[in-house]
Amino acid sequence: MNVVAQLQEELGDLVELDESALEAARADSSGHAAAGRPLAIVHAESVAHVQQTLRIATATRTPVVVRGAGTGLAGAANAGAGEIVLSTRRMDAVVEIRADDLLAVVEPGILNADLNRLLAAHGVWWAPDPASREISTVGGNIATGAGGLLCAKYGVVRDAVLGIDLVLADGRLLHLGHRSVKGVTGLDLTSLVIGSEGTLGVIVGATLKLRRLVEGSPCTVTAIFPDVRSAAAASAAVTASGVQPAIMELMDAASLAAVHALLGLPTPPLGAAQLTIQTDGPAAIPEADMIATILRTHEGDTVLSHDPDEGERLLAIRRSMHAAMTTLGTTLIEDVSVPRSAMPEMFDEIARIEREYGLTIPTVAHAGDGNLHPNFIFEGPDTPPHIWAAADELFRAAIRLGGTLTGEHGIGVLKRRWLVDELGSDQWELQRQIVRVFDPHGILNPGKVFSSDA
Amino acid sequence: MNVVAQLQEELGDLVELDESALEAARADSSGHAAAGRPLAIVHAESVAHVQQTLRIATATRTPVVVRGAGTGLAGAANAGAGEIVLSTRRMDAVVEIRADDLLAVVEPGILNADLNRLLAAHGVWWAPDPASREISTVGGNIATGAGGLLCAKYGVVRDAVLGIDLVLADGRLLHLGHRSVKGVTGLDLTSLVIGSEGTLGVIVGATLKLRRLVEGSPCTVTAIFPDVRSAAAASAAVTASGVQPAIMELMDAASLAAVHALLGLPTPPLGAAQLTIQTDGPAAIPEADMIATILRTHEGDTVLSHDPDEGERLLAIRRSMHAAMTTLGTTLIEDVSVPRSAMPEMFDEIARIEREYGLTIPTVAHAGDGNLHPNFIFEGPDTPPHIWAAADELFRAAIRLGGTLTGEHGIGVLKRRWLVDELGSDQWELQRQIVRVFDPHGILNPGKVFSSDA
Ligand SMILES: Cc1cc2nc3c(=O)[nH]c(=O)nc-3n(C[C@H](O)[C@H](O)[C@H](O)COP(=O)(O)OP(=O)(O)OC[C@H]3O[C@@H](n4cnc5c(N)ncnc54)[C@H](O)[C@@H]3O)c2cc1C
Ligand SMILES: Cc1cc2nc3c(=O)[nH]c(=O)nc-3n(C[C@H](O)[C@H](O)[C@H](O)COP(=O)(O)OP(=O)(O)OC[C@H]3O[C@@H](n4cnc5c(N)ncnc54)[C@H](O)[C@@H]3O)c2cc1C
Repeated sequence: MNVVAQLQEELGDLVELDESALEAARADSSGHAAAGRPLAIVHAESVAHVQQTLRIATATRTPVVVRGAGTGLAGAANAGAGEIVLSTRRMDAVVEIRADDLLAVVEPGILNADLNRLLAAHGVWWAPDPASREISTVGGNIATGAGGLLCAKYGVVRDAVLGIDLVLADGRLLHLGHRSVKGVTGLDLTSLVIGSEGTLGVIVGATLKLRRLVEGSPCTVTAIFPDVRSAAAASAAVTASGVQPAIMELMDAASLAAVHALLGLPTPPLGAAQLTIQTDGPAAIPEADMIATILRTHEGDTVLSHDPDEGERLLAIRRSMHAAMTTLGTTLIEDVSVPRSAMPEMFDEIARIEREYGLTIPTVAHAGDGNLHPNFIFEGPDTPPHIWAAADELFRAAIRLGGTLTGEHGIGVLKRRWLVDELGSDQWELQRQIVRVFDPHGILNPGKVFSSDA
Repeated sequence: MNVVAQLQEELGDLVELDESALEAARADSSGHAAAGRPLAIVHAESVAHVQQTLRIATATRTPVVVRGAGTGLAGAANAGAGEIVLSTRRMDAVVEIRADDLLAVVEPGILNADLNRLLAAHGVWWAPDPASREISTVGGNIATGAGGLLCAKYGVVRDAVLGIDLVLADGRLLHLGHRSVKGVTGLDLTSLVIGSEGTLGVIVGATLKLRRLVEGSPCTVTAIFPDVRSAAAASAAVTASGVQPAIMELMDAASLAAVHALLGLPTPPLGAAQLTIQTDGPAAIPEADMIATILRTHEGDTVLSHDPDEGERLLAIRRSMHAAMTTLGTTLIEDVSVPRSAMPEMFDEIARIEREYGLTIPTVAHAGDGNLHPNFIFEGPDTPPHIWAAADELFRAAIRLGGTLTGEHGIGVLKRRWLVDELGSDQWELQRQIVRVFDPHGILNPGKVFSSDA
């Protein structure tokens, strides 16, 4: 009996073979698609379904690609010929909410924003807020180690998970971590699974660390600068002042112009870059005042608003970035991260790459934590070689500045060829061996992250 | 040529064979000592010395016990017959301090408090503040994943390390992590090394995540309660109110009485327990007022002070706990951690164990994060079987309540026999296999953490 028949025998209707669904599972939101079409999609509704699927996969040595909502930007959830797609999207229950212990126990398939709507009724929230929060799953957020706009102040996924229930490739279930906020018992496998992009096991449950809802409404400051370097310098000055903004987003000239065009706003001055900063909590007003003063000293044309609706309107410009990019062509959204003080230098490097490759690379940055998203634009579905050559220079510059290939999107297939450059071959090989401890037959997301073929 | 001769040939005077030094290396601050005496102590002064030592150790298959300051409380740095002690205490340079990027690059041997004195001149600090900060090394803090009084508000070691330079058992040097605050490149080996108790490699450098010094002076609130349960309930009420104290320490009746006796203070009312709470930062005063109100509602006999010196005097009672215990006999300091809401139940369990075993178990707790330190007192150097039996009940209760064996001190030798109870045998075996990837010949701290012999 072939593997699909075995899956159907055990899992019945949970096994989907619909052609368009299989076709859709070849790609995530990066646009990059796997070669060929996967064998089947299993829509797991329980831990037992995940275990059954993996036992069959192990017995038949069939590769398994775990998939949340498929919003990833590194091709990590892409499934191709000969692979089973294991979707955890239907496992979306919230098992427990404990406002007193600031924790929640959830299944992996719940959407980030759906969870936060439920949590809000208890006066708490889960801080990781990827821009994709309305469309991405908590399991996917954990598997990628997602960040978001608020993370400089409130932390990334890595700061917000106490424990993970993990099904191994052979179907065994492990409980990693604990419900207490503190603990140093044995190796910290919870942290190891965060950001592991489906290579170590299937996340079937998570104990999340919550925060109490922030009271009061945020204040918003925006400022226009003559160029991106001065915007970056102003954001560094805000960081250096010791004020901790909730959000601090930087848009370079090309990004700002593209969004203004999309939204029908007046064309910004040539070369102008923008900072959008929000403060929140009890000190929101004095902090916003202080930030406005700093931005003005840095010659930013500055607007301050205490009105939350107006604040959302100002932020909408930043939030429209992704949509604006898609109007320009196919987009490769990059994701390097550098020490905060190196941001101006990183922008210089991007300008150099633009000149050398004859490209415009619209770039936004989570300026509070040095995470930049340069967008490479091109025609047609496949990233052309000269774009990869330019991206290669970008990655090397980030690593040279003490930073990293990816601040929040992960390695997936799109960056696997650079992984060894950052880790060094000894560490790269060691990481591969660790993966093999979890998955000796290499059936979980093979070819992703650690594959040596680029 | 035997291993000591080889070490001497390559490392000369760095190799110490002095009997009393070797004798001292048998034990850490737990009091528990290894069987027999180690072969030699290597006082590494550079990464190269660490690498040379490990190459010789690997070639000769000689076990190596890495040692910082030896203040550990789990026996993890204890070295016995046939083992080399590799001390990183002399590698104490601060390589770089970047207040703008809130990071510092340090060698492992610097004492926590020495580092913080240097950092203070730059307006920054490294938040982990074990009570042993004047006597323990940053490398040891990282290897144990240390916590401290301030960690409910400012985080533990796990929240405060960006990267680690690690020498493997075979002498190769790996650079884990990066200088940027964000990054999801490959597996998070930095987190894996934190708390690994010398089993994965030797930490020879670390990039630490700093905070800006907190401005203003702290406010201190102390309150006496009729019993420990009501003190625990009051601390839970503080947590539930959403105020975040910098410090919230609980002392039960036996602890409080012992410290009062040591310091010559008036005997506290029979059964009375105490909470000591500090607030800091811009909202220190209103937060202290709010906390005082909560404690009074819970019938705490409450004193509030805005004077930092008076605050230190009030905290001195808590800080004298360790000294007070040593006046009572030999102490086994336990370290369980539970979800905050389970603290009153955990105190009930301790009371039950006291009754059943005819013991008094003076207990203090970092009440802000549910980490309890019950102290078992006995005569003579070795922990007697009935004390271990009582501790066994303590551990099982903590695990049952969703907590963990050790909140901050680690497993070492003293808790290795319970590790499998918490992890389950599948996870325990998987963790052992991961250790073997780093250290295939098992020469790093053998018998610690993962040893199956108790
Ligand atoms: C418009 C847009 C904005 C975005 N903004 C951000 C942002 O601000 N910050 C950010 O970090 N990312 C962002 N992303 C990227 C993406 O949304 C995140 O990576 C997200 O965490 C992926 O979640 P998902 O459920 O879609 O996972 P998928 O794309 O389905 O999977 C991603 C990876 O996780 C693995 N995985 C998924 N579920 C599990 C599971 N249960 N167990 C084990 N492995 C699993 C997959 O195998 C794959 O390797 C954005 C994407 C889009 C399209
Ligand atoms: C009075 C007192 C109070 C204490 N209070 C606290 C507290 O509040 N919080 C807390 O968490 N702990 C506390 N401790 C325990 C102890 O101080 C900590 O565990 C500390 O982190 C150990 O540091 P050390 O340099 O003494 O390490 P050691 O005791 O020398 O070693 C501890 C472990 O770390 C390993 N190690 C040390 N250096 C390295 C290195 N460079 N590379 C790899 N592995 C290494 C050792 O092999 C061993 O496994 C206290 C101890 C005492 C005596």
